[in-house]
Amino acid sequence: MSDLKAEYWMQKALEQAQIAASKDEVPIGAIVVYRDQIIGCGYNQREVQQNSLSHAELIALNEACHRLGQWRLIDCDLYVTIEPCPMCAGALINSRIRQVYFGASDPKAGAVVSLEHLLDNFQFNHRVLYQGGILKNQCQQIIQNFFQIIRSKRKIK
Amino acid sequence: MSDLKAEYWMQKALEQAQIAASKDEVPIGAIVVYRDQIIGCGYNQREVQQNSLSHAELIALNEACHRLGQWRLIDCDLYVTIEPCPMCAGALINSRIRQVYFGASDPKAGAVVSLEHLLDNFQFNHRVLYQGGILKNQCQQIIQNFFQIIRSKRKIK
Repeated sequence: MSDLKAEYWMQKALEQAQIAASKDEVPIGAIVVYRDQIIGCGYNQREVQQNSLSHAELIALNEACHRLGQWRLIDCDLYVTIEPCPMCAGALINSRIRQVYFGASDPKAGAVVSLEHLLDNFQFNHRVLYQGGILKNQCQQIIQNFFQIIRSKRKIK
Repeated sequence: MSDLKAEYWMQKALEQAQIAASKDEVPIGAIVVYRDQIIGCGYNQREVQQNSLSHAELIALNEACHRLGQWRLIDCDLYVTIEPCPMCAGALINSRIRQVYFGASDPKAGAVVSLEHLLDNFQFNHRVLYQGGILKNQCQQIIQNFFQIIRSKRKIK
C-alpha cells in the first residue's frame, strides 16, 4: 500500500482520537477498513465507560464483526494511532486481521515492537502483518497535548 | 489460596463451559471472583455471536466492570478452564486482575505458559499472578469430548 493511502486512513483514525480527547479520554483512535470502506471505528472510552476493555481497537473490531456478520475479518486492515497493547494485538490475531498500521509506538504498553513482539510469533494460527510510524508525529502530538493540558490543570488546582 | 477453594471456583467456571458446549461452542468458561462472590461470568460465544472478541474471559471481565462500576478490578481473581490467549491475558493486565487460575494449558494459543509468557513480563504497569492446572483433567476432558462429538458427526455425514 502506498504511504499516501495509509496516511489517508490514519487521518480517519486521528479523527476518532480527537473525539476521545474532547471527552477527556486518552486520545487514541482506530478504524477497520474493508475494500476501501470503513466498517468499524472506535476511540478510547475506558474512563467514560469505566471498562478496561473499551480500547479504540476493540470497539472498532466489535463494530466490524457486527457489520460483516462474521468473526473472521478476512481482508480487513486496522489503523490505530498508537501501537496496540497485548489485549488489542491479541484481538487482531483472533479476528484474522490482514494488516495493522499504527502511528506512534508505545514504550509503556506496546506489544508489537516495544514490550512484546506478539505479531512476530509464527506459532499462532494467524499472522497479522504490521507497519508502524504512519503519521507518527501527529499521533504522538495529540497524546502529548492531552497530558500537557492535564498537567497544567493540576498546577492551577 | 487452598487448592480446594480454587477447585470450588473452577467448578463454577466449568459450569459456564458446559453452557458453551450445549450451544455448540468450544466449551471454555470463566468467572471473576471478588470477596468470595462471583461478579462476572462468561462462556465462549464466538460462533453464536459471530464475534472474535466473545471469549469467556472478556465476557466475564466486561460484566465485572459493569457490576463494580470501575475498570480497575482490584482484588479480583479470574478462573478460566483453559489458559488465556494473548487477547485475554492482555485484558487481565489491563483490568488489574490480581490472579488468574486456569485449568488446562493451551499449546495452540496460550499466552501465559505456552506460546507466550505475557504475565511474566515485568515491564507492564501491572503484574497478574497465575496458577495453572486447577481441575486440569476435567477442563481438558470437556474440550476433548466436544471435538470427539464434532468428528463423529462429520463421519456420519
